[in-house]
Amino acid sequence: MGSLTTADPAVVSDFSVAAANHAAFEPLNPEDVRACLHKAVDFISDYYANIESLPVLPDVEPGYLQRELMASPPSYSTPFDVTMKEVRASVVPGMTHWASPNFFAFFPATNSAAGIAGDLIASAMNTVGFTWQAAPAATEMEVLALDWLAQLLCLPATFMNHTNTGDRGTGGGVILGTTSEAMLVTLVAARDAALRRSGSIGVSGLPRLAVYAADQTHSTFFKACRLAGFDPANIRSIPTGPENDYGLDPAKLLKAMQADVDAGLVPTYVCATVGTTSSNAVDPVGAIADVAALFCAWVHVDAAYAGSACICPEFRHHLDGVERVDSISISPHKWLLTCLDCTCLYVRDARHLSDSMETSPEYLKNDATDSGEVTDLKDMQVGVGRRFRGLKLWMVMRTYGTAKLQEHIRSDVTMAKMFEGLVRADHRFEVVVPRNFAMVCFKIKASGTMTEEDADEANRMLMKNLNKTGKAYLAHTVIGDRIVLRFAVGSTLQEERHVRSAWELIKNTTNEMMMD
Amino acid sequence: MGSLTTADPAVVSDFSVAAANHAAFEPLNPEDVRACLHKAVDFISDYYANIESLPVLPDVEPGYLQRELMASPPSYSTPFDVTMKEVRASVVPGMTHWASPNFFAFFPATNSAAGIAGDLIASAMNTVGFTWQAAPAATEMEVLALDWLAQLLCLPATFMNHTNTGDRGTGGGVILGTTSEAMLVTLVAARDAALRRSGSIGVSGLPRLAVYAADQTHSTFFKACRLAGFDPANIRSIPTGPENDYGLDPAKLLKAMQADVDAGLVPTYVCATVGTTSSNAVDPVGAIADVAALFCAWVHVDAAYAGSACICPEFRHHLDGVERVDSISISPHKWLLTCLDCTCLYVRDARHLSDSMETSPEYLKNDATDSGEVTDLKDMQVGVGRRFRGLKLWMVMRTYGTAKLQEHIRSDVTMAKMFEGLVRADHRFEVVVPRNFAMVCFKIKASGTMTEEDADEANRMLMKNLNKTGKAYLAHTVIGDRIVLRFAVGSTLQEERHVRSAWELIKNTTNEMMMD
Repeated sequence: MGSLTTADPAVVSDFSVAAANHAAFEPLNPEDVRACLHKAVDFISDYYANIESLPVLPDVEPGYLQRELMASPPSYSTPFDVTMKEVRASVVPGMTHWASPNFFAFFPATNSAAGIAGDLIASAMNTVGFTWQAAPAATEMEVLALDWLAQLLCLPATFMNHTNTGDRGTGGGVILGTTSEAMLVTLVAARDAALRRSGSIGVSGLPRLAVYAADQTHSTFFKACRLAGFDPANIRSIPTGPENDYGLDPAKLLKAMQADVDAGLVPTYVCATVGTTSSNAVDPVGAIADVAALFCAWVHVDAAYAGSACICPEFRHHLDGVERVDSISISPHKWLLTCLDCTCLYVRDARHLSDSMETSPEYLKNDATDSGEVTDLKDMQVGVGRRFRGLKLWMVMRTYGTAKLQEHIRSDVTMAKMFEGLVRADHRFEVVVPRNFAMVCFKIKASGTMTEEDADEANRMLMKNLNKTGKAYLAHTVIGDRIVLRFAVGSTLQEERHVRSAWELIKNTTNEMMMD
Repeated sequence: MGSLTTADPAVVSDFSVAAANHAAFEPLNPEDVRACLHKAVDFISDYYANIESLPVLPDVEPGYLQRELMASPPSYSTPFDVTMKEVRASVVPGMTHWASPNFFAFFPATNSAAGIAGDLIASAMNTVGFTWQAAPAATEMEVLALDWLAQLLCLPATFMNHTNTGDRGTGGGVILGTTSEAMLVTLVAARDAALRRSGSIGVSGLPRLAVYAADQTHSTFFKACRLAGFDPANIRSIPTGPENDYGLDPAKLLKAMQADVDAGLVPTYVCATVGTTSSNAVDPVGAIADVAALFCAWVHVDAAYAGSACICPEFRHHLDGVERVDSISISPHKWLLTCLDCTCLYVRDARHLSDSMETSPEYLKNDATDSGEVTDLKDMQVGVGRRFRGLKLWMVMRTYGTAKLQEHIRSDVTMAKMFEGLVRADHRFEVVVPRNFAMVCFKIKASGTMTEEDADEANRMLMKNLNKTGKAYLAHTVIGDRIVLRFAVGSTLQEERHVRSAWELIKNTTNEMMMD
């Protein structure tokens, strides 16, 4: 029976539940697993089939869920159907539906049947692949999936894993949770290498290390620098402007690095972004690598979103020069149909990571590790335990194939181009920066009696009114001190008609605002 | 059709596949999702039903998977069945089966139908809950699940989230990936607080900060300290011994901290463990908190494994004094039937985390955040993006209820006790340290002509021979400089008969060795 101690509206007290509470507890009984998961699968399929009708941004107040669900865990077990009923009744109405075709905010979290299936199998196998021995297939699948993706991206062979050659002093890849973790582990590796190079005793030299990125770089970079102990005063945020389409200017980078050297600091790390979150700006990777090389600084490329586009030859030039950087990370959970979380990090010399992150407690020692013939992926990440993330990424590439994945990227870009054209055709709006991928930065433009400040207010209001309808959700940013709306195409269920509807909604909402 | 460019043995070239390659690409088509996931579910149920017959540790060579699967991603799409066929044929035989009832290594990664279902739904909804607004239900469910677990553990209310009171200056919880991340974020918070307290300019004071833990503390703690920039020379590993059952001696801690103060260092952080990985030792939480308080040092409790046991009143005393520490982390992915990854971190003052980790880029700004009425969980973790991890934990507690969860813990402990009894009854073996939870540390003992060194060799050989059979998998550790075997009970499909069989296998393998 359900809990007797709480006011649970869904309490069930029939005999079968009472019986279940007295039977042996078998939470992984294969037939129960089958029954529960089939129910969850049907819930998911129905969710996708109906998602278009759900408000993409929910209309709930802070604390709503605590008021709907039991305040305390139940004492007794409950049929799985009751749990699912509460998920349907209370969780779904409070979700921001990232899978909705009317979702245009942030970057889409793309997904696929094969990706979800891979993640599901990983959850069920529940392997903890810290060492090769603890999960040979999981480790090797991760290496293989990373090699496949590297081939799709035409990454230089120097980034590839060399697991099986006994030569662990070269390239390596690892799947991490998020870009933030990729930045953190490479920052730590670069930090320790710089300390060693500069003859620092312990971390005494740390207050002198400096790091660099454009002011358009993701905020998580500045957070990762603080996590790794860099002095906030030595984290350089280099101004960008429209003259470089908000990309990092190598000349400014050179000037900043030289000024630091002149002041007795040690340039340690440069983060370049291919496809910034704010406006999809692209930092010139090769030119940045050339500048950084003058100072022996580590260069990391954050291609979290736009890296996936580089599987298409027509976008690959955005990675030109990558053969001269130290590391690059790409998040297939953004634009390559692989559900969260999946960030692929490639480094040119995996030894730098393991120098800083290797641990070897007694209970993890084993012959395979001792042989030097295997990669123990724990030594390339923050923690020790790790999910079997390689499976879903491999299943996506194996099932859909390169051509379909390229088609997926191109289809999103085509829809974004179409939206861009619609914006340009309406004299009240402007496209603020050149569109590089599948996101359009646009705004109601200041003109006539409308000042820039008025336009800011109008764009804020437009976003607020749009998002309130539940029929579209988009986010804003600030570019050149002005409010700009971000229209990110690519939610997996999105079709051209959704983009067109969103534009109609934007136009109509603007009309209504202008009439007020 | 399958790839034409690679030698894929599983290539399928029938018309339906060719047709699929020309149809519109709909990777989240609801009916395809339904079909693929139902297949994955049947695979999983069958896997559990047959897992007992699979060798728990696989007999594969490094690089085996690369030799079996295609070296490059296919150009064209493939039926999902082909992908699954390769998973069955090549992945399963190379897995270390953590879900096997014959798995006794490390700590079990427990799991359940409800937990997998919750993870599956999270993968499908694929929400990225960095802010409350980006996923209200995901944020609130995480807060609720953490509050439920805190109630099960009888944690003081000061650790509870205060999302809905506008009072963000008090307790808070967050679900992270692993204990390592919980250690890292609390180390960074403690580091920054100590720097502020000591009037450091930037990180100039960092080389003077010192941290403390018993030598039995998980190696990931020492790694997390290095990640956070602590000087390796100031990371104190305090020796333990049999006189305290390998727990941290508060007197030794006091002495170490005072010595550091006398040398001009700043004691910053102490990590106490409830249930060490090596031998399940328990550091005395309250006494450690009292010592640390003398130096204003942060105290974190790592209860990754054994914390789950504390939902049973008879084990709760191991957390006595927790009301005086700053943070505690528990990993339900270890012993509370929730699949990887799920580490619950509770802090007494969430402000310390957000002081170090808050970011506020323009595109994440929103009214809900500005109201101060909501928690944005991104400010309590390394990264920004985050999976909807609260759902699986809540579904486990909601479906099974407290009584069954306690029964699950007790059943594992009872089986471990039984194993302990079997070991004690055999004069060739000894139990090396007192059993606190569901793990038994035992060894072939030195006696007669067998020296301690001989015993080490015999125990190594026993483990190697056992693991080679594929009928059991256990790991070793070193306690007091001697090799010890760890027998960790609790894999979810495990029953008493598996423990008895493992013991028979241990005895028989030992007999064979002794006869040689």
